[in-house]
Amino acid sequence: MKFIKTPVKGMCDMLPSDMRLREHVFSMIKKTYGAYGFMQIETPIVEHIENLTSKQGGDNEKLIFKVMKRGAELTRALEKGDGELADNGLRYDLTVPLARYYACNREKLPAPFKALQMGNVYRADNPQKGRFRQFTQCDIDILGDESNLAEIELISATSAMLTQIFAEIGITEFTVHVNDRRILGAVARSAGFEEEQVGSVLISLDKFDKIGLEGIERELLEQGYDAQAVSRYLAVYRNAGAGMSIEAFAGSAGDIPQDAVKNLEEIISCVRPMLSGGVKIVFDPTLVRGMGYYTGPIFEVSMDGYSFAIAGGGRYDQMIGKFSGQNVAASGFSIGFERIVTILKDHMQGSFLLPEGATAFLIGGKVSQERKTQVLAEAARLRQEGATVTVMPMSKNIRHQIELLEAEGYRHFQKVFE
Amino acid sequence: MKFIKTPVKGMCDMLPSDMRLREHVFSMIKKTYGAYGFMQIETPIVEHIENLTSKQGGDNEKLIFKVMKRGAELTRALEKGDGELADNGLRYDLTVPLARYYACNREKLPAPFKALQMGNVYRADNPQKGRFRQFTQCDIDILGDESNLAEIELISATSAMLTQIFAEIGITEFTVHVNDRRILGAVARSAGFEEEQVGSVLISLDKFDKIGLEGIERELLEQGYDAQAVSRYLAVYRNAGAGMSIEAFAGSAGDIPQDAVKNLEEIISCVRPMLSGGVKIVFDPTLVRGMGYYTGPIFEVSMDGYSFAIAGGGRYDQMIGKFSGQNVAASGFSIGFERIVTILKDHMQGSFLLPEGATAFLIGGKVSQERKTQVLAEAARLRQEGATVTVMPMSKNIRHQIELLEAEGYRHFQKVFE
Repeated sequence: MKFIKTPVKGMCDMLPSDMRLREHVFSMIKKTYGAYGFMQIETPIVEHIENLTSKQGGDNEKLIFKVMKRGAELTRALEKGDGELADNGLRYDLTVPLARYYACNREKLPAPFKALQMGNVYRADNPQKGRFRQFTQCDIDILGDESNLAEIELISATSAMLTQIFAEIGITEFTVHVNDRRILGAVARSAGFEEEQVGSVLISLDKFDKIGLEGIERELLEQGYDAQAVSRYLAVYRNAGAGMSIEAFAGSAGDIPQDAVKNLEEIISCVRPMLSGGVKIVFDPTLVRGMGYYTGPIFEVSMDGYSFAIAGGGRYDQMIGKFSGQNVAASGFSIGFERIVTILKDHMQGSFLLPEGATAFLIGGKVSQERKTQVLAEAARLRQEGATVTVMPMSKNIRHQIELLEAEGYRHFQKVFE
Repeated sequence: MKFIKTPVKGMCDMLPSDMRLREHVFSMIKKTYGAYGFMQIETPIVEHIENLTSKQGGDNEKLIFKVMKRGAELTRALEKGDGELADNGLRYDLTVPLARYYACNREKLPAPFKALQMGNVYRADNPQKGRFRQFTQCDIDILGDESNLAEIELISATSAMLTQIFAEIGITEFTVHVNDRRILGAVARSAGFEEEQVGSVLISLDKFDKIGLEGIERELLEQGYDAQAVSRYLAVYRNAGAGMSIEAFAGSAGDIPQDAVKNLEEIISCVRPMLSGGVKIVFDPTLVRGMGYYTGPIFEVSMDGYSFAIAGGGRYDQMIGKFSGQNVAASGFSIGFERIVTILKDHMQGSFLLPEGATAFLIGGKVSQERKTQVLAEAARLRQEGATVTVMPMSKNIRHQIELLEAEGYRHFQKVFE
C-alpha cells in the first residue's frame, strides 16, 4: 500500500500552536465584527463549476481545483470524450459564493445585509513562501446599501479589529488609504485616454509603488498610447501622494465627478473621529486595487515595514447583479487573514502557548485505581476553576515528555507514583 | 452565462441563525475539551487519493469526491486512457487524515497526544433528511496511550461537554454504553464460531436494537452458520442487556479474557464519580460499533427519544500503524456534531438569536454628516459596552426592514431623521 505522510502539495497541517494563534485571531475577528452587526455565514467549499467559470474570478479561474463527476455521469462524459469531466470545483474566493448565496437566500436576510465570512479557499497556484493552495480568507461585505454608510461601517469595523489585534504585539500605527474608481477613471479620460483604454492605464498606475512615475511613463509609451495624453496624465500624479487633500488633487486633475469627491470626503470625515490614536485615514490618489469589478470607493490598509496590504476592498455595485440578474449595491473588505497570522508570528517569541496555569498529571505505571480516582477528582476540580489540565501516563523518558508539554505551555507538573 | 443559485446538491448554505447556533456549539466543544488538555489541530480538506483509498475508510471509500489532476499531468492521464484522472480527493472522515498527520508530525507533538479536530468531511452519498454531502465532524483522539487513562479521559471529557450543551435545553439525562471488542470476540469464539467468522457474526449482533434476538438468529442461520453455535451464542445474550454487571455477564459467557473485563470495570469505576447526576455509564454487552478497526474498549452515548447515537468511539490500536508503519496506541471518540445541532434546534423556539441588547440605528435619507457622526459615536460607545450595534440606512419599507432585523434578535431600534 502506497501511503503518503506529507500533506498535499501547497497545503498545511496545523500544529496545536498554529491553531491556538489562528483561533485567537478568529475569535477577535468574530467579536469585533459581531459588535458592528456583521453576521457570520458560510457557503460550501464545493461550488458549481458553472459559477466558478463565469468570468467573475479573473485569473483565479485558471487555478480551479476541479471535482470530478461520479458514476453514470462520469462514464457518459468519458465516452463522449468532450472533456467536461468536472461538475464541481473548490471555491477560489469567497465573493463568487457570496453572490450565489445572496441570490439564493436574499428574502430571509436583513436589508442591508452585513456578512462576515471566514473560510478556506483553494488555488492550484505554484506554492511558494507565504502562498498556499489552501488558505483562509476573511471577507466582510455589506449588500444592499447604496449609501456611504457601508464604507464607513466597513472601514471603522476593520480599523477597530486591526487596532485590537496589533495592540497585542505593540503595533499601534497603520494607515487606511482610500480613493474612488470614478475619480481614477475621470483623471484618465481628462488626460485624453479613451474609455476603453482606462482599464489598461489603471493597471500601469497600480504599479506606482514598484516602478514609479518613470516606469509608468515607459510602460504606457511602449504600449503605444498617445504621448501627450501620457504626459498630461503623469503631470496630475507628479505632485500627488497619499495624505494630500482631495480638493487640492481635484483642482489639478481635470474634470472630476464632484459627487465622488464629496462622497469620499464624507467617508473620511465620518471615519476619522472613530479611529484610535495611531491609525490614519488618508486620500491616496494612486490607490487602484487590482480587481476590475470595483465601481466606487476603494480602500486598503497598509503598515510600515510590510510591503503588502493587510486588508483591501471597495464597492462593486454591478457584480452580484451579473450573477443573480438583480442589481444589488455591494461594498466589501477582504482581510488578509494569513498575513495577519504571519505578522503576529513574526513578532512573537516562540509559539503561541496554552493559557497560564496549564497542569499535567503524569501517572506512573503501578498507580492503584483508588489513587487514580483521587487524581481525576483533583483534575476535575482544577478544570472547574478554569485551568487546562491533562491526565496522562508517565512516559519512560519523562524528561522528554515534560519538554514537549512545556513547549505547548504546560507549566505545572504533578508526578503521581504509588 | 449559466448561473446556479442553489448550493451544490447535498450541501448547505448556513444562514446567520444557523451559524450562531453552530458557533455556540463549537465554542462549548473547544472550551470543554480544551480544559481536558485536548489540542485543536487541522488537516487540509484535500487529501492524497492514495491515502483515501487505502482500505481504512470502509464503505466511505466508495463515496469519495475526486479532485482532478491538472495541466500536463491531466493531459498525460487522458492520453494514456487508464482512468487515473484524480490525484487528490476530499476527505470523507477525520481519522485517515489524523493517521497521516501523526505520521508526519509525531516528533513535534506531546506524547501521548490528545487531539481535537473539528472540520468538514465530504461524502458523495445520496442526500436525504439529515444526511449531507458536506457535514461537520468533531473527533477527539488520544494517540500513544496504551492505558485505560485514554478511555477515562475521552469519556469524562465527552460527558462533561454533552452535559453542558444539553443542560441549556433542559436535557440532563443520557447514557454512556461501554463494551470491549475482545469480549465480543471471545463470546463468539466460545460459542463455537471460527476466528474468521467473528466479524460477520458481530455485524448481525450489531442489529440487536433493530431486529432483536430472533432476527439475529434467523440471519445467522440463513448465512449457514452452525445451528449449535448460533444457539449457544444467543443463549449468552438472552438475559443480557445494558446496565448488567460485567461479572454476571462474564460468568455465563464462556471463556472471556479477564484483563479486558478488569480494564472495563476500571474504566467504569473511574468515570462514574466524575459524571453529573443524570448521566449513567453502563456495561452494554450488545454494543458492537460498526467499524472493523476497533481492537479494545468501545463506547457510545445514547439519549432517550433519539434512535441514533450522539457520540461513539473506541480503541483502534492497529490502524495508525497500518498507515505509518509504526505501531501507535490510539483511542478516539467521534461526536455527532450535526446531530447535536439538530437536537438543539428541535428544542429551541425559533432561531438562535443575537445576544440581548442588540441595537439598530436606521438612518433616514437626508441626515446631515454632522448628525451621522454623532450617531456613529453613540454606536461606538454602545459597542464599547459590549452591545451588538448596526448602523444602516432606513429602507423605504421600514416595517419589513425591522421585521427581518427582529428575526435575527435586534430588539432596540433608533430611527434617525434630520
